[in-house]
Amino acid sequence: MLGLTIEAVRPLDAAAMNQARELQARLTKPAGSLGELEELSVRLAGLTAVCPPPLLDSAQLAIFAGDHGVHAQGVTPWPQEVTAQMVANFLAGGAAVNAFARQTGVAVTVVDIGVAADLPPAPGLVSAKVRAGTRDMTVEPAMTRAEAQAALEVGIQTAHAMIDGGARVLLTGDMGIGNTTASAALISAFTRRDPGVVTGYGTGIDAPTHLRKVEVIRQALALHGPSWGDDAASDPVAVLATIGGLEHAGLAGFILGAASRRVPVILDGVIAAAAALTAAAIAPSSRDAMIAGHQSVEPGASVALSQLELNPLLDLGLRLGEGTGAVLAYPIVAGAVRVLHEMATFDSAGVAAKVEE
Amino acid sequence: MLGLTIEAVRPLDAAAMNQARELQARLTKPAGSLGELEELSVRLAGLTAVCPPPLLDSAQLAIFAGDHGVHAQGVTPWPQEVTAQMVANFLAGGAAVNAFARQTGVAVTVVDIGVAADLPPAPGLVSAKVRAGTRDMTVEPAMTRAEAQAALEVGIQTAHAMIDGGARVLLTGDMGIGNTTASAALISAFTRRDPGVVTGYGTGIDAPTHLRKVEVIRQALALHGPSWGDDAASDPVAVLATIGGLEHAGLAGFILGAASRRVPVILDGVIAAAAALTAAAIAPSSRDAMIAGHQSVEPGASVALSQLELNPLLDLGLRLGEGTGAVLAYPIVAGAVRVLHEMATFDSAGVAAKVEE
Repeated sequence: MLGLTIEAVRPLDAAAMNQARELQARLTKPAGSLGELEELSVRLAGLTAVCPPPLLDSAQLAIFAGDHGVHAQGVTPWPQEVTAQMVANFLAGGAAVNAFARQTGVAVTVVDIGVAADLPPAPGLVSAKVRAGTRDMTVEPAMTRAEAQAALEVGIQTAHAMIDGGARVLLTGDMGIGNTTASAALISAFTRRDPGVVTGYGTGIDAPTHLRKVEVIRQALALHGPSWGDDAASDPVAVLATIGGLEHAGLAGFILGAASRRVPVILDGVIAAAAALTAAAIAPSSRDAMIAGHQSVEPGASVALSQLELNPLLDLGLRLGEGTGAVLAYPIVAGAVRVLHEMATFDSAGVAAKVEE
Repeated sequence: MLGLTIEAVRPLDAAAMNQARELQARLTKPAGSLGELEELSVRLAGLTAVCPPPLLDSAQLAIFAGDHGVHAQGVTPWPQEVTAQMVANFLAGGAAVNAFARQTGVAVTVVDIGVAADLPPAPGLVSAKVRAGTRDMTVEPAMTRAEAQAALEVGIQTAHAMIDGGARVLLTGDMGIGNTTASAALISAFTRRDPGVVTGYGTGIDAPTHLRKVEVIRQALALHGPSWGDDAASDPVAVLATIGGLEHAGLAGFILGAASRRVPVILDGVIAAAAALTAAAIAPSSRDAMIAGHQSVEPGASVALSQLELNPLLDLGLRLGEGTGAVLAYPIVAGAVRVLHEMATFDSAGVAAKVEE
């Protein structure tokens, strides 16, 4: 499935992009006055290979939840059981992302891809556990290659099922105590930047914990770097397996699944950015399906988005994850497409054009 | 009416703000992880003097439309009749702001406060013309003091009528060919910054037109500055009357009307920023009701928001006006309030707190 998905990820359609540029020029507004939204609408035409691209009126958020063996190294003050507790909170509708999703009209699904606890079945929960948390990457590979591939396929299947169900835009969410550590490790590997540069304070750790976190990442990279020849792009699945999280693998698959169906995917914060680098290493054109929802305060997010050449739509100082930044960005993305469907042209509205100077 | 409105603009309620801060600390998320939205929710509690502040589930945009005598000075390549044509476009639902408003669930009203043409009655149009466009401010005062006061009252009445009709948040919109010129003049007067610093390229003018625009503003300020003793804060209504637009007066009144009822008002771009400076000069605490929707590319907007100490929520390179930036920011503002209503607390959700380090 991964191979077929990779093959289906195609470049942007230039003809549809030209049509979108021409349409933007005829709409009743000064040329360029919608700023970044005009560029975004052109890219979405290219992605979907049609102008105007379909209205993004059915939006689905998938929150991939998993635990992390590296939690044992003291990289966060939050107990591991918070992952499962927050999954219950999402399913009960009591988390920040639920409030934002109700505001913006986004449907929320939680995918248990690797929570350490047994989770009872519940509406809104997809049970697709590959294993009950990763192994400690400072000691051994976080996942086997087969586990990483299985998690990638869970992500692809999740995306395809949502699209088959009518979703026109997908949004990434995540939950996993310790997952900013795995994110920073992945970002360091895929961008060749030092762990000290890409490692942040996550949910709010103190300075000694931050130092420990950076050292833990260095240790993991030193242990596993040789297994992929220290060139992450040469074998991205090996990188993902050794230092990633199950939710990173699920998210990378989710992004590839969206890209393979020419459906846009709005990225949340640093966990999504790490998964996005992984997806882009696996299938470079998947980058064209990605929309950076917001600028997380995590330094690794900036480094990753910069390498992907993605400009975040929002910059609100968020560092929560869950998909909150993606959900808040969704109305803007949908608005950018809606303009191409619903705005009048100068001709149709009888609005005079500007006099040439 | 203006006097009573000014008296009703009161400072933020400290007790409600403290309650909001305490509530934020108990919600199921790391402290501070919602960034600017936490501060915003605290301010909205202070504004409305209740915690949580009311859900912002009924949002009303008012687009104040007016023409400008200074158009005769060649400050824009757009014909003046575009103002009336765009009003018709708004009423037909074909403008960018209509597309965004449908996406985000904002109701749109157009207020004809000073369009040069006669506009036939239409659903969604409030006919409240004070005069058919301002006079040319390079030659004489744009409005008489009585006209400026009448336009301020139209704005106040519009806000009060919307709030009486159930609106819980107001959004500013504007339409008026030439209105970035009046905006830059107002911003220069209220911030004491040189016209060259606060004057932008509006809808997209060329360099010679920009030079002329700056010179036109200098000329108007030289002519009228002495009438308010060159101290804009000493008589803001005189400043507004001499160099402002009818839509600026309407918007300033609209902001004061919202603030007097403790209802938040989301500002759009540079026209709203100029009106906001005017409102803050008339009643300083009205600033606390203002939310900067976005960062317009117009330099005057940055200068004005900086003086008002308002951080814009969005920065998307927009320079369209109409209310587009305010409408796109609305779901974020509403989301910030919704969190206080709908999120679980650590206790209620049974989520473990972080271990103290």
